[in-house]
Amino acid sequence: MGIIGMGRIGNVHYQNLLTFDDVSVKTICDILIDEVWKEKYPAVSTLVKDYHQILTDPEIDAVLICTPTDLHPQITIDAARAGKDIFCEKPVGFKNEDILEAYRVVNQMGVKFEVGFNRRFDKHFDRIVEYRDENRIGDPQLLKITSRDPEPPSLDYVEHSGGIFMDMTIHDFDMARFITGQEVAEVHVFGDILIDDRIRKFKDIDTAVISLKFVNGMLGVIDNSRKAVYGYDQRIELFGSKGVSRAENILNSETTFVGKEGALADTPMYFFLQRYKEAYAQELRSFFGAVRGEHPVACSFDDGVRAIRLAEAAKRSLLSGQVEKVAEIK
Amino acid sequence: MGIIGMGRIGNVHYQNLLTFDDVSVKTICDILIDEVWKEKYPAVSTLVKDYHQILTDPEIDAVLICTPTDLHPQITIDAARAGKDIFCEKPVGFKNEDILEAYRVVNQMGVKFEVGFNRRFDKHFDRIVEYRDENRIGDPQLLKITSRDPEPPSLDYVEHSGGIFMDMTIHDFDMARFITGQEVAEVHVFGDILIDDRIRKFKDIDTAVISLKFVNGMLGVIDNSRKAVYGYDQRIELFGSKGVSRAENILNSETTFVGKEGALADTPMYFFLQRYKEAYAQELRSFFGAVRGEHPVACSFDDGVRAIRLAEAAKRSLLSGQVEKVAEIK
Amino acid sequence: MGIIGMGRIGNVHYQNLLTFDDVSVKTICDILIDEVWKEKYPAVSTLVKDYHQILTDPEIDAVLICTPTDLHPQITIDAARAGKDIFCEKPVGFKNEDILEAYRVVNQMGVKFEVGFNRRFDKHFDRIVEYRDENRIGDPQLLKITSRDPEPPSLDYVEHSGGIFMDMTIHDFDMARFITGQEVAEVHVFGDILIDDRIRKFKDIDTAVISLKFVNGMLGVIDNSRKAVYGYDQRIELFGSKGVSRAENILNSETTFVGKEGALADTPMYFFLQRYKEAYAQELRSFFGAVRGEHPVACSFDDGVRAIRLAEAAKRSLLSGQVEKVAEIK
Amino acid sequence: MGIIGMGRIGNVHYQNLLTFDDVSVKTICDILIDEVWKEKYPAVSTLVKDYHQILTDPEIDAVLICTPTDLHPQITIDAARAGKDIFCEKPVGFKNEDILEAYRVVNQMGVKFEVGFNRRFDKHFDRIVEYRDENRIGDPQLLKITSRDPEPPSLDYVEHSGGIFMDMTIHDFDMARFITGQEVAEVHVFGDILIDDRIRKFKDIDTAVISLKFVNGMLGVIDNSRKAVYGYDQRIELFGSKGVSRAENILNSETTFVGKEGALADTPMYFFLQRYKEAYAQELRSFFGAVRGEHPVACSFDDGVRAIRLAEAAKRSLLSGQVEKVAEIK
Repeated sequence: MGIIGMGRIGNVHYQNLLTFDDVSVKTICDILIDEVWKEKYPAVSTLVKDYHQILTDPEIDAVLICTPTDLHPQITIDAARAGKDIFCEKPVGFKNEDILEAYRVVNQMGVKFEVGFNRRFDKHFDRIVEYRDENRIGDPQLLKITSRDPEPPSLDYVEHSGGIFMDMTIHDFDMARFITGQEVAEVHVFGDILIDDRIRKFKDIDTAVISLKFVNGMLGVIDNSRKAVYGYDQRIELFGSKGVSRAENILNSETTFVGKEGALADTPMYFFLQRYKEAYAQELRSFFGAVRGEHPVACSFDDGVRAIRLAEAAKRSLLSGQVEKVAEIK
Repeated sequence: MGIIGMGRIGNVHYQNLLTFDDVSVKTICDILIDEVWKEKYPAVSTLVKDYHQILTDPEIDAVLICTPTDLHPQITIDAARAGKDIFCEKPVGFKNEDILEAYRVVNQMGVKFEVGFNRRFDKHFDRIVEYRDENRIGDPQLLKITSRDPEPPSLDYVEHSGGIFMDMTIHDFDMARFITGQEVAEVHVFGDILIDDRIRKFKDIDTAVISLKFVNGMLGVIDNSRKAVYGYDQRIELFGSKGVSRAENILNSETTFVGKEGALADTPMYFFLQRYKEAYAQELRSFFGAVRGEHPVACSFDDGVRAIRLAEAAKRSLLSGQVEKVAEIK
Repeated sequence: MGIIGMGRIGNVHYQNLLTFDDVSVKTICDILIDEVWKEKYPAVSTLVKDYHQILTDPEIDAVLICTPTDLHPQITIDAARAGKDIFCEKPVGFKNEDILEAYRVVNQMGVKFEVGFNRRFDKHFDRIVEYRDENRIGDPQLLKITSRDPEPPSLDYVEHSGGIFMDMTIHDFDMARFITGQEVAEVHVFGDILIDDRIRKFKDIDTAVISLKFVNGMLGVIDNSRKAVYGYDQRIELFGSKGVSRAENILNSETTFVGKEGALADTPMYFFLQRYKEAYAQELRSFFGAVRGEHPVACSFDDGVRAIRLAEAAKRSLLSGQVEKVAEIK
Repeated sequence: MGIIGMGRIGNVHYQNLLTFDDVSVKTICDILIDEVWKEKYPAVSTLVKDYHQILTDPEIDAVLICTPTDLHPQITIDAARAGKDIFCEKPVGFKNEDILEAYRVVNQMGVKFEVGFNRRFDKHFDRIVEYRDENRIGDPQLLKITSRDPEPPSLDYVEHSGGIFMDMTIHDFDMARFITGQEVAEVHVFGDILIDDRIRKFKDIDTAVISLKFVNGMLGVIDNSRKAVYGYDQRIELFGSKGVSRAENILNSETTFVGKEGALADTPMYFFLQRYKEAYAQELRSFFGAVRGEHPVACSFDDGVRAIRLAEAAKRSLLSGQVEKVAEIK
């Protein structure tokens, strides 16, 4: 298979693929590639600057798209037309028409397509779904997602991120659907800039409380912050007629100290690549399982589109100050 | 002192007062009082059916008003005019004009007046305020309150409760102000009937997500359910620029069992009188401290009025489906 | 009923009895009693210096013996002969012959006798016994008791305490029997002075690891320290063929703070009267239930004697440096 | 480098080495090797049955010895004479004279030698050492190690294991030294067969409480069981004059469910390779760091010998029923 885009996330996937017995990375593609990279990636046979070289290689069955978001739809279209199965990082794109065109081509070509919502593969969150599927939680009534980054991205990143809802909350929107198995009907946002006023010029915010009303009547709330100084705060709680399931943070260690002044424990893991280390590997294992036809794709193009619509509804609610209906987003 | 209204909460206060060295309950008043009660309350000298008998007793300095809510304002007015210091159960009343009249008289007569928001005296919640006051949390940015009852009240109770916001969420509205030290500017509610459809005829709901925007820009959310089968779920979290403080539930025991099938722990305490046992005693200790002039009243008439306005804003938001501004509630 | 000895523990029991509807404290006895005490104990009708005045009062059914330990046997004998039911603080005495004589008289007179091992009434420890009785733990195999005081007693107290095993570990020896329902066969002690060298002159120690072999083959270990700076550390763990049950410490609050430097939680409750507050009340409720014939005495004279024999075995093991058999202690 | 012995632990090390950029496995050796293994180990250039082929290869700098324990000393001697740096699985051998001879040759040849006590590299246990080194714990006074396997090994394994102390407790003996930084002076054991009576024929036990007295006067206790049905129970606690540090178990997930019947959490990880997954990788990283001269070997031959002496003392104490002095074991 091949990887298109060797930035941070491309490298995460590359490292994980090295430990897979049944998948080999033949070609990697990046516009910055030069001779030195050969030493950096000894296990790879071909390094290219133009992703079309990957798409025309008949030995390559599947590609990972890890480029900047604005390139996702075009590469998806080209890869689908080349008959490759596709794993594409989230979000599937920025512009609605491009995304829908890519969706159409993927469906038409019948290739497999998976969106990289890594949190679906986290064993702690999956445990909530297990409790739900065992019908321990009963009828779901309330969903709560806490999702706070340890520190804000650079202003440069913010500028091209598509805004907090498209860049950060989109994971939570996907989890809202994944954890409950329900669709969201209405969205209301209270948002503010409480951390760094410089993002005002990008019309973005850094702190938000996003309320959800689901189609089946159940309620939900996501709280987001760009800066939780104590680490990456990622908790989910699903409450229903028979009980509640909660996924707590993963700490740097399970060791405590208790002295005269109080009890000390370690903070949550700080870095998302560390927190979701196993989930990233599991995500690719699942994708290649789907490529081999062992099971359906775990996170479909449709899932990618629906998460984007929730992000769009949130954006509109922030502007309007009122509730927005998801069905009205096309 | 005297107690007016010897229902459940009147009796809770009575039992607590028995253990106070420096306060004695001279008279209790209840419309149901009969001869048998003398044996039930041996420590009390006088039992009366008409609360005016308490108000005219010059030996009585202070009264506890524990009657149904609709009587609170009139008894408050009468007690204030009689020069008694007043502890009044929450909420201070139902009708706005009655409440404001009572407020006016209390101020005019200069008696001390405390509203019974017992959670302010819970050591676990107070610990959050301590962390805040020590400036460990930094600038507060997000408040989260989980407040779920173990089981819904009777339909009869619901009918006269004033609705979920006035009966149940009012505690959370008071905590929202108490924990943050900030005033709420805007309220948005998503609410639904997910537990028992029979409350629909009272135009009430049983599940709610209430988002808050504070005057200082910080955000908040309260989630309410009338039925958490696992017990009384009372958690608060205050997140700020320097960290987060969380108060967790109090369990029936700190003992666990771990076997092949998993680890078992006990559920949160089920009954509010058990959960807030110490807080109820502390609340009265504080009130009598204020009566003796040792410190100001901990929860003033103004606090009572402001909580009611938040409940009213929530009610309006549920009806309008949109954000309501608290300043517009008079 | 009457209380003999109004030191710290006598007063704890007195306060608890005030809240009991069905028990009234008629007389209290203390050699230090004077006129001022009448104001201090308004609920008591008689205050005496000589405990025989309690024993000869036909209106008094039961007595609490809360004097220094060396007086326990004689007062027990006198009270038993006067036909009173007896609650006696631990340990039942110091000298073996005195204890056995008191035991004989109690049996002969057929009065009820309970030893004040308050920890048997702690809901957290009782929960382990519940798990055991539900046969969740299976065959018990290992018992672990951590029992550490927050600070050492005064040297003066140490001198008359009977040594660490008789004063402090005796509670743990009783718990070893209570939690497992088994008898101890052999004891081995490693002990040392690691906190304050001044207790060496009393031939006492302040830190110990006490290993136990039970008659049924199961094993156990108690660790003791006179000084856990972080609070009163009281944990028990029972491990068996089907699982393990653990009782953890009770913290000053369930509120945490997580900041950049780590997560903070509160320390275990510091003072034993606070930690075991509910257990002390429950202990007396149980005693008076037994006095009224509702159930057998929960902690018998025999239990008191067996705990003392374990303390004696530990003392001998510390001296001999070897294993001591409990059956050889008479 | 080369690996000698490709059983379970040899394969664990092999998998970890695949992810190291700076180490390559040239040759693996196993007496069972055949043609099929070439496909199983594509990254390896040479597969041999005779370990001498590894020792004579000048391209190989270091070897991992992962054979059965009785072969460790001879291979160590041969590898040291061949000038290879050596990583040897625990224990370093069974027979005292063989071990001491190997030790002598290693010292004489000046090669680096590390014993595979993987728990030294566990981040949770290391955190205790960090707290100790920061002088937060103060003077260490008590060490407690809980070490329970999820299920007993096969009887066949037990027969050749060297007994519970040499096979299982040896890890705990090493941790006792590592966590405290102190040497053990005396050992006392209570042990029993409480799980499976069939091991009686090998004169082994399955449950033990091992008390320790350290040279500096501090005390310790290890409890061992061959069968904790709920998973691999690995906890350590170090208590001192200024506080206590505790490393708790790692659970299968940090997700809970709370329903009417109680709260459920996941069990500790069951399998030692899963529990210590990161520690095994870290152990090798450290060894190759030492081989490259970046830091001293983290766990020396002397550490290996001292752990064996503690195991021997425990064995003697079980037989004698009394305390054994470690200094008397040669």
